[in-house]
Amino acid sequence: MPADTERFRRTREALQAAKLDAVVCRLAENVVLLSGYYPMVGASVVFFPAEGEPILLAPRFEQEYFPRSGVTDIRVFDTWQNRYPLPNDNLARLLGQIADERKLKGMRIGFEGSFEAIAPNGMIGEPTAAGAPTRKIVGDAFGDGVVDATDLLYELRALKTPMEIEKLRIASEVASLSLRAFKEQAVEGRREVEVAAAVDYAITVDGTGYKGARFARGFAQVTSGAATTAGNWNFPTASDRKLERGDFVMIELGCVVDGYWSDLTRTVTVGKASNQQREIYDTIKAAHAASIAAVRPGASGMEVDLAGRAIIVAAGYGDAFVHHTGHGIGFRYHEPIPFVAPHSPHVLAEGHVHSVEPGIYLEGVGGCRLEDIVAVTARGGDTLSKTDFGLD
Amino acid sequence: MPADTERFRRTREALQAAKLDAVVCRLAENVVLLSGYYPMVGASVVFFPAEGEPILLAPRFEQEYFPRSGVTDIRVFDTWQNRYPLPNDNLARLLGQIADERKLKGMRIGFEGSFEAIAPNGMIGEPTAAGAPTRKIVGDAFGDGVVDATDLLYELRALKTPMEIEKLRIASEVASLSLRAFKEQAVEGRREVEVAAAVDYAITVDGTGYKGARFARGFAQVTSGAATTAGNWNFPTASDRKLERGDFVMIELGCVVDGYWSDLTRTVTVGKASNQQREIYDTIKAAHAASIAAVRPGASGMEVDLAGRAIIVAAGYGDAFVHHTGHGIGFRYHEPIPFVAPHSPHVLAEGHVHSVEPGIYLEGVGGCRLEDIVAVTARGGDTLSKTDFGLD
Repeated sequence: MPADTERFRRTREALQAAKLDAVVCRLAENVVLLSGYYPMVGASVVFFPAEGEPILLAPRFEQEYFPRSGVTDIRVFDTWQNRYPLPNDNLARLLGQIADERKLKGMRIGFEGSFEAIAPNGMIGEPTAAGAPTRKIVGDAFGDGVVDATDLLYELRALKTPMEIEKLRIASEVASLSLRAFKEQAVEGRREVEVAAAVDYAITVDGTGYKGARFARGFAQVTSGAATTAGNWNFPTASDRKLERGDFVMIELGCVVDGYWSDLTRTVTVGKASNQQREIYDTIKAAHAASIAAVRPGASGMEVDLAGRAIIVAAGYGDAFVHHTGHGIGFRYHEPIPFVAPHSPHVLAEGHVHSVEPGIYLEGVGGCRLEDIVAVTARGGDTLSKTDFGLD
Repeated sequence: MPADTERFRRTREALQAAKLDAVVCRLAENVVLLSGYYPMVGASVVFFPAEGEPILLAPRFEQEYFPRSGVTDIRVFDTWQNRYPLPNDNLARLLGQIADERKLKGMRIGFEGSFEAIAPNGMIGEPTAAGAPTRKIVGDAFGDGVVDATDLLYELRALKTPMEIEKLRIASEVASLSLRAFKEQAVEGRREVEVAAAVDYAITVDGTGYKGARFARGFAQVTSGAATTAGNWNFPTASDRKLERGDFVMIELGCVVDGYWSDLTRTVTVGKASNQQREIYDTIKAAHAASIAAVRPGASGMEVDLAGRAIIVAAGYGDAFVHHTGHGIGFRYHEPIPFVAPHSPHVLAEGHVHSVEPGIYLEGVGGCRLEDIVAVTARGGDTLSKTDFGLD
């Protein structure tokens, strides 16, 4: 993989503007950001200096992945066999060497100190938590000048480079393909968990190898009937419930391909939709299109939200659209910038990538949401996901 | 669900012994430990005082799960709709109320400050990272007496109560059942990702509802041929490769059921095993049985490791068993206590739960590992997983 020189340039500029001599990151999402390298385990670290090229520290058993990064200076270590030191001992040694090499002891070094995520724990294997031990390793190597660079990293992450947008497009394409399985499976008598598991299966099987992808994983959440209403819309967990004729069935689909994320939602009915269901769906579809049409550099998050929200309000469903229109996405399933909502302080810029996901949730009827991922370009919103099928 | 009064009693005793007035935790794995509550998102907090009962703070949209916890004092908040405050604002307010109520301002409060995990990032949806923001919320509520209680929490977690062991048994049974899919799928021409995805599918579909389980998810990793050897055994990631006659095929299977974990490994051959493959398998199987037979309260981690390792050394494969025999497990896929290895400082005690996973990895031949989960009881090792099938 060629280096993303645009990302490297922006990072150096941001470090210089913040008067940081370097930044050191371990969270996989920030390793992807700063090096293009997708760590398979949490033992990799990127050192990115204000001048020059980044250095990647990584375990030898991941070497299959090294050529996929844009980094040429990779410091490899052996670990996790009885005869080798543990990862943290390797990282402490190698970071100490870098601090000496670059004469950075006591200089101002940024660290991902305040990263914290509201996480659907049911979705995770092991937690990725860079806690006090990693903070100590960095402090031991570089001295007292280590400062929290979390805001700087979130801002860097908000504006994607062209290469990153192409990676995000691949993730959204893989997710889009798998939604065929959703449409096929969302039929009467099928259990929610069967539908969700079929979509996850499709992502692993069809996504691995898709346009060169090495790793693809889905996190499908499928709910139906009453479970789709407002009280339950947050991180809906598929259950044992069998789909019934007349249900709204909703899929909330997170998907990661080589460290880049997609987030799509589709809603269908089991059997023929009722008139009210169709009216709700058509309203959502119009709101979704209006918000996407409002996407352009310089538009505020509030404007893009209002473009769709006005349609929902006009249709009499304003109180039932209980949440934001969109959130940032990229190196993680949900990112803070840009936020597209009535109370958003953000203004869209070229390179922002965010969801557009209006929804209507009615007690007794159910909930309906459509969600796609949009990149902000000079020509307006570029929808990265490509799936269209009807309500029933 | 009745409260796990044994867990509550032990926690109070540990807090009193450590002269802590309370502990406050947010990582889902510690919320499960201290309350029996499995949070679907990362917005829940448990306050556990040195005297009295725990208090759970949780979002209303998770209320379906509340009766599964053993906590009666649940402080519910509304969040994640435009009209409600964000989770952290709710948590700050409610923890402040508790600090006032219990007169704990400035008292000694434990916090999960050093939790950190070497995480296979490819396995996660969103990171679970309790960072500086949560630390600030706890400090604002309780004052300057907040101290790092990570070691205390890890020690509490190491010794499971009888109720917790039954939960872990369910997780291992769900994982065991799904291994039928592994055996069926591991045939010539099938791709690694297809085998892995079929196992994950089985866990979601068959595990949800199993003995009352609400949430089940698998993290199957399937590798074959050269990818099973020593340089690649760490967190092996299934690829597009098609299985070939004569391959060793290995599954490393993490599985979570309602917050409790299993970790199993099986190895088969595609078609008939060669004489050397059979010798390796038989050696591993004998080592696995010998280590399990050595499990008893009072045995050292070194002894249990050596019981199996001696068999592998005697067969001439000592250098090819490159890793530990076992690690702790329970509230996370991998836990630090007890460690069963040549360099382990731990002595087994009743209530410890750990893996037994000898392996032999040979360049040119491949790798073979068998892994089960064992609870330490007064009568010896109780294997929680129940799957047996042959090599070919």
